[in-house]
Amino acid sequence: MVEFDKQTFVNELISPNGSKIVLLVMDGVGDLPNEEGLTPLAKASTPNMDKLATLSDLAQTVPVIRGVTPGSGPGHLGLFGYDPIKYQIGRGILEALGEDIEVGELDVVARGNFATIDGDIIVDRRAGRPATEESEKTVAILNANIKEIEDVKVTFYPGKEHRFVLKLTGEGLSDKIEDADPQKEGKPIKYTTPLSSEAEKTARIVNKLIDRIKEVLKDQPKMNFALVRGFSKYPKLPQFPEIYKFKAGAIAVYPMYKGLAKLVGMTIIPTGLTIEDEIETLKKEWNNYDFFFVHVKKTDSYGEDGNFAQKVHVIENVDKVIPEILALNPDVLVITGDHSTPCAMKGHSFHPVPAMFYAKNTRKGLSKGFNEFECARGAWGTIEATDVMNLILAYAGRFEKFGA
Amino acid sequence: MVEFDKQTFVNELISPNGSKIVLLVMDGVGDLPNEEGLTPLAKASTPNMDKLATLSDLAQTVPVIRGVTPGSGPGHLGLFGYDPIKYQIGRGILEALGEDIEVGELDVVARGNFATIDGDIIVDRRAGRPATEESEKTVAILNANIKEIEDVKVTFYPGKEHRFVLKLTGEGLSDKIEDADPQKEGKPIKYTTPLSSEAEKTARIVNKLIDRIKEVLKDQPKMNFALVRGFSKYPKLPQFPEIYKFKAGAIAVYPMYKGLAKLVGMTIIPTGLTIEDEIETLKKEWNNYDFFFVHVKKTDSYGEDGNFAQKVHVIENVDKVIPEILALNPDVLVITGDHSTPCAMKGHSFHPVPAMFYAKNTRKGLSKGFNEFECARGAWGTIEATDVMNLILAYAGRFEKFGA
Repeated sequence: MVEFDKQTFVNELISPNGSKIVLLVMDGVGDLPNEEGLTPLAKASTPNMDKLATLSDLAQTVPVIRGVTPGSGPGHLGLFGYDPIKYQIGRGILEALGEDIEVGELDVVARGNFATIDGDIIVDRRAGRPATEESEKTVAILNANIKEIEDVKVTFYPGKEHRFVLKLTGEGLSDKIEDADPQKEGKPIKYTTPLSSEAEKTARIVNKLIDRIKEVLKDQPKMNFALVRGFSKYPKLPQFPEIYKFKAGAIAVYPMYKGLAKLVGMTIIPTGLTIEDEIETLKKEWNNYDFFFVHVKKTDSYGEDGNFAQKVHVIENVDKVIPEILALNPDVLVITGDHSTPCAMKGHSFHPVPAMFYAKNTRKGLSKGFNEFECARGAWGTIEATDVMNLILAYAGRFEKFGA
Repeated sequence: MVEFDKQTFVNELISPNGSKIVLLVMDGVGDLPNEEGLTPLAKASTPNMDKLATLSDLAQTVPVIRGVTPGSGPGHLGLFGYDPIKYQIGRGILEALGEDIEVGELDVVARGNFATIDGDIIVDRRAGRPATEESEKTVAILNANIKEIEDVKVTFYPGKEHRFVLKLTGEGLSDKIEDADPQKEGKPIKYTTPLSSEAEKTARIVNKLIDRIKEVLKDQPKMNFALVRGFSKYPKLPQFPEIYKFKAGAIAVYPMYKGLAKLVGMTIIPTGLTIEDEIETLKKEWNNYDFFFVHVKKTDSYGEDGNFAQKVHVIENVDKVIPEILALNPDVLVITGDHSTPCAMKGHSFHPVPAMFYAKNTRKGLSKGFNEFECARGAWGTIEATDVMNLILAYAGRFEKFGA
């Protein structure tokens, strides 16, 4: 029996028609009500999105399965139409791609955090969140002092703040090893363990490397150790532009999201840091792509910080650019998130995510605004995140009829 | 490729945190509206559950698939997170477990009904619902007169009213045989038939046994025959406390539900007969378990009887104990049913089942009371019964994030 695969199924129904699509993702936008009973989306003054809601079909999405909290990887893969349980992507590869690091067949990459240890105890998993320029210096020290372990080439790449990327290059490497990260402060350094026999060499190399890093950094004031996790080889995913038969561009600021978009085969479009910059980029590139993924990070960041007022503020800023997007006359504009990040929980959550489909052929008439409550009772009810792409293609008129 | 199994998937995400969970099941609570347009839940005065609804996330559950009416087994297995289509459990095993009858590898058990026959025609499938003490005497007569058929040991165990349990013990027995029960009165005695060649011996034994029972009971005034059905061997189910990584206790009065709980590995906590007794037991055992399954039978019984007023009354009695449950400060309280048992239908039905999730991190704000109508438009919309456990674990904070 052939397993049913939604992407394979819809691929055969697609007939390109020159329509223009914008998928605007406010990262972690879903939330829980404050003491007034309002979520940030409900609290924010969003006249443009609310008016759009009256013309749109609303839904709430389930990123993975009910009850499961997704990381950014599964959250976005789902929105891009990829079953996030079937396609599980290591954090290392996402960071590497986002930083424009080439990853080849002999490579294993991992995400690194500079950390502070006292003896063998981890006292700060982020080494006091150093400025990016500071951690770049530490990366240079590591590159100068550690070039290989056994026959494996070792390279460190700078990331934002306390983050960096580790790349191992050599024969017979595997990503089937555990994170070398106890995940909690106050715990001792953790070495890695192979998860299968083919990974024994890699685990040995990584554990030797951990000792070398500790030795090389021992006199640094704060960044005197590193945690490495999310070991991954380059995964081969079906390519988004081929599945959906359009030219797809990604407008995103943060490495993780650029990495995800690149992984599925979107073209990364360089852009500035603000929402306004991203919209300028959208305008400038409007004629060059059929599909735009536009990513807004700060809704998630303020959710993680528990900063309700600032999350509201970001949403209001997004609302202000909606008329500029509409002025481009997109055939489909979808506004949603990849998951919920409730301020009260200061982290990702399992709650369903608001989604709004604006297009010509919506049923509309059911919803009065764009927020969690309206979306829970929207035209599509509760849907799987992997159905968002199907609905986008449908509203864009890009599907042939199924069957005669 | 390995088939996706929800329980296997979530098992790896679980991280125990000491939270306390109560799953309160009002058996068959879902219903249809009376001439006033009110279901028993809507009609009942339930100030406590209604207030809880304003703080909770509501849903309606589908026990098996849309349109399918579950028995008590599938209804509960779904709520416990087991795919009720994958795990099909015979009625015999449930009765046996509920009556504390040991079932071993050589055993096949079945549920028996004492019945009244006239000639070979079944005139009362329950022999006038004899008192339990009366039917115990008939069980003793059977045990005294029938000890084995061929090389198979035969044992009868008393149950409630007209019910008993039959246990066959011997080599080469199978549970792949049809019920020896025509299911309707006015029909003749029905012998069993093997459903596969390996079951031929068992079918032959059972049919000889039917003739022996008829012979032994022929002079009894009412209980002059027995119907046997739900032949089953002991099924090996994944164990609930291992899948979900907590200590689970079941507070239930009726054998069937204790049997189901035991089958999945919950500890059966002895309790008294009333709802108040069950809540006393909950209080007394509060520190000994992480998860409590509390079962209320009478909502279903009155539904089966078509007694709307009494079903309302049971619901009101449950409502009165809600403050006592809340006083224990559970992290998650879920109130739901295993299926609907509409009074107008006098039996189980396929209608979705109201469910309410009370916890700290609910989205809330959407619902004004706990009944079928509010649940149909609740925060989670319509969910599979097998998602109830996932949502419980999520609200309890017992899941790690999936993916980076």
